[in-house]
Amino acid sequence: MSLVTLLTDFGWASPYPGQMKGVLRSLCRAALIDLTHDVPAHDIACGAYVLAAAARAFPAGTIHLAVVDPGVGTSRLPVAIASGGQVFVGPDNGLLLVAARALGTPRAHAVAVERFALRPLSTTFHGRDLFAPAAAAIARGLAVEQVGPPVPAPVVLPEQPAARDGGLLRGQVLYRDPFGNLITNIPAGWLDDLAGPLVIVHARGQATAHRVTTYGDGAPGDLVILAGSDGTAEIAVRGGRAADLLPFGPGDPVMIRS
Amino acid sequence: MSLVTLLTDFGWASPYPGQMKGVLRSLCRAALIDLTHDVPAHDIACGAYVLAAAARAFPAGTIHLAVVDPGVGTSRLPVAIASGGQVFVGPDNGLLLVAARALGTPRAHAVAVERFALRPLSTTFHGRDLFAPAAAAIARGLAVEQVGPPVPAPVVLPEQPAARDGGLLRGQVLYRDPFGNLITNIPAGWLDDLAGPLVIVHARGQATAHRVTTYGDGAPGDLVILAGSDGTAEIAVRGGRAADLLPFGPGDPVMIRS
Amino acid sequence: MSLVTLLTDFGWASPYPGQMKGVLRSLCRAALIDLTHDVPAHDIACGAYVLAAAARAFPAGTIHLAVVDPGVGTSRLPVAIASGGQVFVGPDNGLLLVAARALGTPRAHAVAVERFALRPLSTTFHGRDLFAPAAAAIARGLAVEQVGPPVPAPVVLPEQPAARDGGLLRGQVLYRDPFGNLITNIPAGWLDDLAGPLVIVHARGQATAHRVTTYGDGAPGDLVILAGSDGTAEIAVRGGRAADLLPFGPGDPVMIRS
Repeated sequence: MSLVTLLTDFGWASPYPGQMKGVLRSLCRAALIDLTHDVPAHDIACGAYVLAAAARAFPAGTIHLAVVDPGVGTSRLPVAIASGGQVFVGPDNGLLLVAARALGTPRAHAVAVERFALRPLSTTFHGRDLFAPAAAAIARGLAVEQVGPPVPAPVVLPEQPAARDGGLLRGQVLYRDPFGNLITNIPAGWLDDLAGPLVIVHARGQATAHRVTTYGDGAPGDLVILAGSDGTAEIAVRGGRAADLLPFGPGDPVMIRS
Repeated sequence: MSLVTLLTDFGWASPYPGQMKGVLRSLCRAALIDLTHDVPAHDIACGAYVLAAAARAFPAGTIHLAVVDPGVGTSRLPVAIASGGQVFVGPDNGLLLVAARALGTPRAHAVAVERFALRPLSTTFHGRDLFAPAAAAIARGLAVEQVGPPVPAPVVLPEQPAARDGGLLRGQVLYRDPFGNLITNIPAGWLDDLAGPLVIVHARGQATAHRVTTYGDGAPGDLVILAGSDGTAEIAVRGGRAADLLPFGPGDPVMIRS
Repeated sequence: MSLVTLLTDFGWASPYPGQMKGVLRSLCRAALIDLTHDVPAHDIACGAYVLAAAARAFPAGTIHLAVVDPGVGTSRLPVAIASGGQVFVGPDNGLLLVAARALGTPRAHAVAVERFALRPLSTTFHGRDLFAPAAAAIARGLAVEQVGPPVPAPVVLPEQPAARDGGLLRGQVLYRDPFGNLITNIPAGWLDDLAGPLVIVHARGQATAHRVTTYGDGAPGDLVILAGSDGTAEIAVRGGRAADLLPFGPGDPVMIRS
């Protein structure tokens, strides 16, 4: 039995995730797994982060149906992207590509609307009317190459790649998790070259932090930096919330030095 | 394998949805799909809207276990309602009938308590102790006609049907979605007969809106009316939340004119 | 097909539950059922309550993967506990033992890290890197006795057992549910020996309550005590929220008398 995950900004309270599940189960027998429906409304970058983080844990053959789609009904393309044995289906607005690149070399194809769309096709809910039917067809065995013409250059989100200049590590915050931890894109291994207390430099000032191994290290209230579970530097507070202490968050630049 | 969906006002944080799933899986092998557990507490009308919206997308054979049940333990009937090949199980308080009517001609039967209830039967949690066992029995193949005696007139929620009087469209708000969009019961096709800017008339005044095709149309901050994904008029704000701008919401009457 | 449930404090919005599901589905074919991911951050006692309440409803053979783990990466043990035909996998911090004791006589075994951990093993996310692989191995048929050495005395949460002294019932609040009901550990049957109006005595004073059978009894706004769905005394307000009216909550002592 195939596996389809769902990720949206539709909210766990709304009927929209249920409607997508209904269409999927009407058209295929896949097992359905919720990733989340609480991506902040229209926050493509947050959705892309969560999707990429989750997808890395899934087996080959998984199909991810992901919809954070402020441009629904406009000219943005519907796409299916195959990478590393998994498939991502959703809008071509940058949501899918971070995950697809993390798994391998993406091959993107436009979803042929006239072939997959439910009738009538709404202008406001392609998650149900177009992406779910396309995902179901792929779950039944259709190759991504057959959903429509190739998309040579799918939309890429702007990003500020991590870089280092001697002892100065530069990057950006990718995600604020529910514990208030701030997850950066700076490889955690780079921290090993910095000695002594660390300094977090941000747009409004700086703060001193201790390098630790896990959340339980250090004294209560300590600002700490550790290797996060996906291998990048993560800023936390022992027994507290780093996001409440520091005046920056997802998308903001951050630097770390000794 | 059969399919059972769950919809409740129990909250995603509580043990109650998990307890229902445990009973279901103890008594049948159905695949379980969450619709939502975030119906506002005791809000039968909201639950009825979400259930009806979701059920339309599911295939024949689906069983929907729905519990928004402020009268649990009182004399309200437990019912199973078959319609359009699907079955709804829950309290007879109006929660199920909107969905059942949307799918076909409902046939309602009272759930025989002595036959299906777990022992001991709590007075406060029939979702777990009565409705889940009845849904499991139906998932294993029991016909709705066999769960108990017919209920000739199941409870109907009060509603204000949409109507039009020349160029004046009347209806009510059915739902405020997580994006702040206000979904009415006025058929979207009726909007086609209105020319020029539209006026939304409500109990506290009126507002001017533009007719658009999808959320991405118009200028940021514009109040717009469009055809929602279920075919009725929907009030939205480009890049904002209509629910925050307008002083009315679910259950309130609304009129639209040129 | 085996069944694995998930309970965490990771939040429904985060990528962490999805990552655990991905690892599970990479390593076994079990059906996955969410209990909740909204346990308050680091609230082991709340997680233990919800897990115990839910587990009682599940069939033998169910595996519960539960992670509320403020001590992740420290010396706290990873454990698998078998009881009553079900298995609980997670940190040895008291989270699992309430449920395991409710089902039978617990047999706890340490999870051998070197045998089950994914490589690299993060210091901050054992739910994904250690507990999920161990749960998957058990779902594939491994006996709990084979995951590692016995743990003779798994960690027990402090508790204040219910007791009665003539007409004075003593206990504590275990849980505040989403409706604002306060669930105690006092057996509901003990209420039968008390006549007339009841008095709830707490650290800051006392309040008078009526004994009722279900939520719909009494007058709107009445403070009531009833038999909750798990057989203990529950404090509620007709049409309101007891938790908003009374100045105590989970963990606090409470007494009930005539």
